Amino acid sequence: MSDQKLTPQSEDFNEWYNTLVLRADLADYGPTRGTMIIKPYGWTLWENIKAQLDKRFKATGHVNAGFPMFIPQNFLTKEAQHVEGFAPELAVVTVGGAKELEEPLVVRPTSETMIGHAYAKWIKSYRDLPLLINLWNSVVRWELRTKLFLRTTEFWWQEGHTAHATAEEGEFETRQMLDVYEDFARNEAAIPVIKGRKTEAEKFAGADTTYTIEAMMKDRKALQSGTSHNLGQNFAKAFDIQYLDQNNEQQHCWTTSWGLSTRFIGAIIMTHGDDNGLVLPPRLAPHQVVIVPIYRKDKEKEAVMEAVERLNKALIAADIRVIVDRREGLTPGFKYNDWELRGVPVRMEVGPRDVKKNACALARRDVPGRDGKVFVDQENIAQTVQDLLDDIQASLLARATEFRDSNIVDVSSYDEMKTVIEAGQWARAWWCGNTEDEKKIKEETGATTRCFPFDQPEGDGTCIYTGQPASEVVLFAKAY
Amino acid sequence: MSDQKLTPQSEDFNEWYNTLVLRADLADYGPTRGTMIIKPYGWTLWENIKAQLDKRFKATGHVNAGFPMFIPQNFLTKEAQHVEGFAPELAVVTVGGAKELEEPLVVRPTSETMIGHAYAKWIKSYRDLPLLINLWNSVVRWELRTKLFLRTTEFWWQEGHTAHATAEEGEFETRQMLDVYEDFARNEAAIPVIKGRKTEAEKFAGADTTYTIEAMMKDRKALQSGTSHNLGQNFAKAFDIQYLDQNNEQQHCWTTSWGLSTRFIGAIIMTHGDDNGLVLPPRLAPHQVVIVPIYRKDKEKEAVMEAVERLNKALIAADIRVIVDRREGLTPGFKYNDWELRGVPVRMEVGPRDVKKNACALARRDVPGRDGKVFVDQENIAQTVQDLLDDIQASLLARATEFRDSNIVDVSSYDEMKTVIEAGQWARAWWCGNTEDEKKIKEETGATTRCFPFDQPEGDGTCIYTGQPASEVVLFAKAY
Repeated sequence: MSDQKLTPQSEDFNEWYNTLVLRADLADYGPTRGTMIIKPYGWTLWENIKAQLDKRFKATGHVNAGFPMFIPQNFLTKEAQHVEGFAPELAVVTVGGAKELEEPLVVRPTSETMIGHAYAKWIKSYRDLPLLINLWNSVVRWELRTKLFLRTTEFWWQEGHTAHATAEEGEFETRQMLDVYEDFARNEAAIPVIKGRKTEAEKFAGADTTYTIEAMMKDRKALQSGTSHNLGQNFAKAFDIQYLDQNNEQQHCWTTSWGLSTRFIGAIIMTHGDDNGLVLPPRLAPHQVVIVPIYRKDKEKEAVMEAVERLNKALIAADIRVIVDRREGLTPGFKYNDWELRGVPVRMEVGPRDVKKNACALARRDVPGRDGKVFVDQENIAQTVQDLLDDIQASLLARATEFRDSNIVDVSSYDEMKTVIEAGQWARAWWCGNTEDEKKIKEETGATTRCFPFDQPEGDGTCIYTGQPASEVVLFAKAY
Repeated sequence: MSDQKLTPQSEDFNEWYNTLVLRADLADYGPTRGTMIIKPYGWTLWENIKAQLDKRFKATGHVNAGFPMFIPQNFLTKEAQHVEGFAPELAVVTVGGAKELEEPLVVRPTSETMIGHAYAKWIKSYRDLPLLINLWNSVVRWELRTKLFLRTTEFWWQEGHTAHATAEEGEFETRQMLDVYEDFARNEAAIPVIKGRKTEAEKFAGADTTYTIEAMMKDRKALQSGTSHNLGQNFAKAFDIQYLDQNNEQQHCWTTSWGLSTRFIGAIIMTHGDDNGLVLPPRLAPHQVVIVPIYRKDKEKEAVMEAVERLNKALIAADIRVIVDRREGLTPGFKYNDWELRGVPVRMEVGPRDVKKNACALARRDVPGRDGKVFVDQENIAQTVQDLLDDIQASLLARATEFRDSNIVDVSSYDEMKTVIEAGQWARAWWCGNTEDEKKIKEETGATTRCFPFDQPEGDGTCIYTGQPASEVVLFAKAY
């Protein structure tokens, strides 16, 4: 809550973001370097994200469970690539119950190894497959440079872990969950993500293939917003996850894992936010509507509040998430700014003149000023508001899609690619390169490969880096 | 899943419990001593518990948030009693990002200190009060003797943390949340808990007063099932949580905390379970109804499955949580035992003869054998099933209440009390004793004070231990 202006995005996007997260009351820094406190407003946004994802996980046959946060250190070493990827960022418990532990415990950075241990024990026969479990928890990866929601030592997420009888089923699951993420991002968060496959260099430590949804932020940097990993038989072999098939033969399972984290809140902030603050997609917003009563004298107050309570009830009855700003001693103007900062999609103003006309004003957050304000009848208010919320949701998606599409440029040479990246855009290029080339390009341009998008042009082309024939285009961008 | 019989409760209650938790697929042991994996069936039960509690927390004005699991070690030492209580059972992170940490981090055993730090920063004025936050997370208290759900190193819970302007508001909140727990236990879990106040010896480390709900298990041992603490100004002073009051003067806040954990699942198992397995209260059961199709020939199957699908749809449409047991190659008898073990409140059997009569059989889990089975018409099946579920819910509560009341005995001397405790019952006795006496009684009888129940007899009495006048009765019992 404050009437200070935010730093404009165009001036310093980073500063805009860091200030906004604190001022909009989404989160705060924890007392230990790298940690974050998600405040009630941010947590409610996360609860809404969780509800929408959880519904989709359950609709595709998954169930939730609770797994321990402490992983015996030796588990990590069982999958060679996995330990290489995670060893540098582990938090380790060495003392328990006032005694030095014989074997140190790692606070989970992700649970593939713990799941591997359990699945090996639980899965005996083909009848036990597929096993489709999801966990909602927090994980720890040591970070010293904190950026709230985007990079913190501890973050909250879901991690799905599944085991299957065949390679085909594993691949189907991996792709299905990526589709779930894309559907959620597009239809709930109004974020038009690009689905694709990660390069070898960018894939998960221990995966055969990693799929990703990539989003473009308003500063045109890319944000990896969710990933789905086909783990092949890597973890099944490392942890001995076997089943007896219908011919009575032992087979290794095929496993997958997939995750989406509180980082996604960062994606929402940076996809839709503007110089006045957050712009939250109606389907996920903690409050979809704020009602601001306007009055000067006690006599006005009575009539206004009568209408406000009536309108409030009508919206609640229609399952619209509404809050009435009853704070005393603050001007309406102050309240408008405050709720704009917090990104509430619709503001309803009710004053004495509105009451007389049986009307009220509706201001949409995504269209600032007079253009976004209409006066409507109080009759059928719930339907009017719902239509407006739906319109805002659709507008946010359309605007973000247009912004994204106008900032992805097809390039046919490395020089062209460098120019596009320098201009802050994404470059789409034919590419046949390897991990070493990718490293060099990152050093030279600051850009990384985001993914081989599923949506590929027809035919083949020439790799912009090696000049060799290439069968796929890749997206290059600077990224968070 | 198994057709082996459980050890009867009367033979070895402990063995019955330990086997049942594993066989009913509620939980498994984690790889590290003291840890637990909550499997999907147990976790769904926990999700249902969470939903019911969360609804009540929100209805009383609370909001959720996410706080870091790592607490700087020095935070713990700020409240003297608190650190004394928790120091012996801490897990400590000493290595992060492959480096020895300058200050070790404690994995939260509970979050009063972390909350104290944050609230001191966030609360400035009386306008910021009350602050009513709840956390759903897991906490760690070092345990070597594991008992699934009852005693594990890591367990899941909610912890509410509130700050208030006055002592009265703090006390009101503490009692209100105890009432919420009691209402939840009684009306959702069918557990008739006793509300009361803990003695000085048994209260939370750092609290002025601890209130508790105490439940009687089927072996007549007591289980503390939820607690609510009035922390007075102890943490506010230790962490400097101050606010500017309406007279512009700095005041320390009054804070509370309250928690209910996955231990409550143990309470459900041991309050209602019988020799055939779990008996889950319908309002919390993951599956309220299981439909078992019965057929021999393919021709029978077709007609039976048509009816099963229709009945299944009718129950789903009425928001009844139903599952169809479609497993092939298992006898109906095996399936009955399996779902009895897992405590599903109602089993619906549909066979060829039922189909012809447009009927089906309903067997209630709480009444074994023929007495619990009725044949009903398929018309209005959802209403018939819902009525039966309501009846089961009420019966479970009535039965548990009767069992509890018949096992609490008023005693007027220490000898009498010892006899009652030896017989495995609870003793209600006038008591004016202190912590030292309590310790002696525990050594001599194995019983602890459970609480001073809110429901007190009129007048005063004579303390059974000291012979001094006493103004309150206390409950003594052996406890988990």
